[in-house]
Amino acid sequence: MVETRESTYQRRLAALQASLPAAGIDLLALAVTDNLRYALGGYAPTGDERFCALLITPTGLAFIVPSLNADQARANVAVPMHTYQDAEGPQAAIAAALGALGATAASTIAVDEEMRADHLLVLQATLPSASFQLSGTVVAPLRSRKDADEIARLQAAAATADAGVEAVFAASRPGVTELELVEIASAAMRHAGAEEIVFATVAAGPHTALPHHHSDATALQAGDVLLVDIGSRLNGYCSDITRMAIVGGAPPDAEYARVHAVLEEASRAAQAVARPGARAREVDAAAREVIAKAGYGDYFIHRTGHGLGLSIHEPPYITSADDLVLESGMVFSIEPGIYLPGRFGVRLEEIVYLDAEGAHVLSTLPRAVRFG
Amino acid sequence: MVETRESTYQRRLAALQASLPAAGIDLLALAVTDNLRYALGGYAPTGDERFCALLITPTGLAFIVPSLNADQARANVAVPMHTYQDAEGPQAAIAAALGALGATAASTIAVDEEMRADHLLVLQATLPSASFQLSGTVVAPLRSRKDADEIARLQAAAATADAGVEAVFAASRPGVTELELVEIASAAMRHAGAEEIVFATVAAGPHTALPHHHSDATALQAGDVLLVDIGSRLNGYCSDITRMAIVGGAPPDAEYARVHAVLEEASRAAQAVARPGARAREVDAAAREVIAKAGYGDYFIHRTGHGLGLSIHEPPYITSADDLVLESGMVFSIEPGIYLPGRFGVRLEEIVYLDAEGAHVLSTLPRAVRFG
Repeated sequence: MVETRESTYQRRLAALQASLPAAGIDLLALAVTDNLRYALGGYAPTGDERFCALLITPTGLAFIVPSLNADQARANVAVPMHTYQDAEGPQAAIAAALGALGATAASTIAVDEEMRADHLLVLQATLPSASFQLSGTVVAPLRSRKDADEIARLQAAAATADAGVEAVFAASRPGVTELELVEIASAAMRHAGAEEIVFATVAAGPHTALPHHHSDATALQAGDVLLVDIGSRLNGYCSDITRMAIVGGAPPDAEYARVHAVLEEASRAAQAVARPGARAREVDAAAREVIAKAGYGDYFIHRTGHGLGLSIHEPPYITSADDLVLESGMVFSIEPGIYLPGRFGVRLEEIVYLDAEGAHVLSTLPRAVRFG
Repeated sequence: MVETRESTYQRRLAALQASLPAAGIDLLALAVTDNLRYALGGYAPTGDERFCALLITPTGLAFIVPSLNADQARANVAVPMHTYQDAEGPQAAIAAALGALGATAASTIAVDEEMRADHLLVLQATLPSASFQLSGTVVAPLRSRKDADEIARLQAAAATADAGVEAVFAASRPGVTELELVEIASAAMRHAGAEEIVFATVAAGPHTALPHHHSDATALQAGDVLLVDIGSRLNGYCSDITRMAIVGGAPPDAEYARVHAVLEEASRAAQAVARPGARAREVDAAAREVIAKAGYGDYFIHRTGHGLGLSIHEPPYITSADDLVLESGMVFSIEPGIYLPGRFGVRLEEIVYLDAEGAHVLSTLPRAVRFG
């Protein structure tokens, strides 16, 4: 049975409300971010400099919405609203909403991680003695356990990213520029159904040694290591994949094959450990140990992975310090990388979801390097 | 003479530093937002959940950057950096940077309006007795006065938006959907050179009465009022325009022509008032008075305009309450609108820049309604 958006948001809001007392949170404030989109079953008003937040207590709800978006919000969700005009500012509406919910100077308030600082400062000024903390304690446990519908959406989004990678590899040859390949990746993802290109990075040669290279007009050369890291959105949910190729006509750096093989082994080791009951840090350790044993420990300069869903980065985070116990339904990247400054970098990124059997990879593309 | 990015960021950072003492600000913290892109002459690291901020005092700079982006940052800007690994978190790097800059519990700290709440809470936890305020006091006066190079970039971006509007009007006929027209607008803007589609809204029929309608699969019908509000980015700078059409083959609502004419008069009145020395609220009042006199005052439910530059919304804001004195080089929208719930809405949006002669419109498209 497919839920309506209304039944979805009623269920999710009730779950959030029910989780607050045990977390010691009196009031949860969600801004116009993916947290709000999650809570409201896919809907969120336009987010901009205008204050907008859904306030949630164990027994109450109040949605502070700029007047110009109020009709639209009412057409989408049945939640008590407090509106304000551009010229008057949000202070009175915020005070009214907090009052209606019984918030006091002694309240413990959890705020959306991505709320804008100007909006948080307004809340803090309204309740200067309240204690402010982050919303992840209560929101992340709900958002990080995906249901079957969410897994299906992530799978569909992954297929668009696979199409983008294939298109880049088909077009890669000496003389083509990174930015041209970014455009080819984006067009292929859109053609495959993506509703949004979340990011698209193509890095060639020494640029691959920068994990977050900003693609530019550099032309590919024969023998270049080529890294493609792209992500799309479909039905609200994200994809994210990284694959490697060697640009045709010349052999790559003599060390390339060894680095790639080490990362393949690291990826498999992490996938094998990733299952319900394992801790996030154990997944990170599985990948990191393979890389360290091969002598590249100093060149794996980031965590092993991040969660994926409505956001491109969300809990769980797969780091060497995170004790989180993984659960069925969790979705995250496993993306070990080795970056040799000034020479080349390699990253192999899979998105996996967990069920009782273990980790399942969403992409259908091989991780082997392409020569073309 | 064209500045290099290095001379641009050295000049802008020096100007920010010089402005702090008079504003009573000890330390300015810019996050990965357009404020940072402005300050660093176009460069900013990848922004995500990892803490990243440029700290600026009257005599010092410290850039807190996640390790995985550090090589890239060093290749782009010469600023003292403090880095940290994913697994250790940013606290030690933040404490070291604040210490290097001499920040104390008594400091007054101005933070980027768009800094993430989780990052602001980390700063507040590091200096719990410091006083936190917003950065606009010192950043907005610099960013809002555009130089000739910035005006030229805004003009070029505006041309791509004009092309998008023309493409939508050329394709509008009964049966085409809002989302198909969004795709046509986006493709036309990209074809005209836009490097990014910042937003694209096409609203038909009663949807036009929602100022921030989210386009959907609704098919156009003969006689529908059609609203196109689109924005792109080119060379870092944004465009934003709204134009109106009537879908062919049937006459629109009998009141349409009158509403459009009132808004045309309101736009002209606001443009005439907009010049260096006028106050923002006087521009708003000029438009609002025309609309109120015509009997539509209750249906103009937003401010008259917003600034535009690296961000799609930035200071100055043209509201009925803003006393800001306008200056030469300022760029903002003049976008009076009238929204008749359940029937239709009309908005005419121009971007203007000010010089000694007054306001100059960037778009080359007429504001008259199109019939097609």
